[in-house]
Amino acid sequence: MPFVKIELTREGVTREQKQQLISGVTNLITEVLNKDPQLTHIVIQEINLDDWGHGGEQVSVLREKGITANKK
Amino acid sequence: MPFVKIELTREGVTREQKQQLISGVTNLITEVLNKDPQLTHIVIQEINLDDWGHGGEQVSVLREKGITANKK
Amino acid sequence: MPFVKIELTREGVTREQKQQLISGVTNLITEVLNKDPQLTHIVIQEINLDDWGHGGEQVSVLREKGITANKK
Amino acid sequence: MPFVKIELTREGVTREQKQQLISGVTNLITEVLNKDPQLTHIVIQEINLDDWGHGGEQVSVLREKGITANKK
Amino acid sequence: MPFVKIELTREGVTREQKQQLISGVTNLITEVLNKDPQLTHIVIQEINLDDWGHGGEQVSVLREKGITANKK
Amino acid sequence: MPFVKIELTREGVTREQKQQLISGVTNLITEVLNKDPQLTHIVIQEINLDDWGHGGEQVSVLREKGITANKK
Repeated sequence: MPFVKIELTREGVTREQKQQLISGVTNLITEVLNKDPQLTHIVIQEINLDDWGHGGEQVSVLREKGITANKK
Repeated sequence: MPFVKIELTREGVTREQKQQLISGVTNLITEVLNKDPQLTHIVIQEINLDDWGHGGEQVSVLREKGITANKK
Repeated sequence: MPFVKIELTREGVTREQKQQLISGVTNLITEVLNKDPQLTHIVIQEINLDDWGHGGEQVSVLREKGITANKK
Repeated sequence: MPFVKIELTREGVTREQKQQLISGVTNLITEVLNKDPQLTHIVIQEINLDDWGHGGEQVSVLREKGITANKK
Repeated sequence: MPFVKIELTREGVTREQKQQLISGVTNLITEVLNKDPQLTHIVIQEINLDDWGHGGEQVSVLREKGITANKK
Repeated sequence: MPFVKIELTREGVTREQKQQLISGVTNLITEVLNKDPQLTHIVIQEINLDDWGHGGEQVSVLREKGITANKK
């Protein structure tokens, strides 16, 4: 009975990327824990950039400064 | 001091249904645990169908296939 | 696809009371929203009294002062 | 590694107030726990008044009755 | 800035399985969303079987009846 | 009606530090949003080091490597 909540900043995540996250996490849990995927629920929650703070600053401010969360 | 979070798929839940959930859960907690209802908070969070995954698929895809969450 | 999280202070909730909360909330959601109970998951999380704050004070301190959360 | 979620009713919180919450909570955690602010994430989630229940009633109904959450 | 919470029933998940979940979800998010893994936090929360309800019954009761969450 | 959840790694947080977090966050919300502190609830949840992942690794492994979350 796993329930997974993925919170991320709202920055253009596509429907296909969401599907990849949902199928990927479900498969991982099935493989690692041998859980029935029918008992696995995943919820993705996108957060506006004004509503996420990192290092004491809004992500919207960080992005205006050119600071991204991208992999280098 | 109970706090209750109800997450459900966004599929036309009405204001009246939300009120029924809020009063019903509050009454249940008052009866079972003898808690002061003024200390009970309930939050309902509706999730878009692209953002909820079940069995590895987006609920939006399940609905397109005619699979519902309705009681049989 | 509802997922419900009930957070409450750890103050002697019994196994039977937990079962009453689980069946009560599940029935309520089935009646109000016509949801298949097999798709409804409920999680109860008990919080230690030092870890819950209300009105700026730890509940453990409120209890020492004789302030309860009981229904009057 | 702290993660903080602030849920509050959607009642005209401004971008500046959100920034004050984010910097204030981050500073508090840095001072009290000596945590690196780069490892502190804060998420603010605003909840519609129909979706928050207190004392068994929707906050939207409480507000129509003139009951506010303001400090006296 | 993703934050992921995995809630599952406490049924003998090992330290190695937790590490597999953490590295697997982090890698997935890096691949699908191109996010810096240093900004990805994962929290696993195990829930006692009396505290998780499915279909209106405690999971501890379901397990006593021989109903598991294992993949068939 | 704010509800605040603070999740942090279990690394010797004292009762006094928890009280400082609870009173500090409550005061901040009262000042910034003018909210009645009696409607503000704070929950602190400590997470075992095996159950928190950062950068794809368990925090317990990071600590064994001498990597801390302390402010420099």
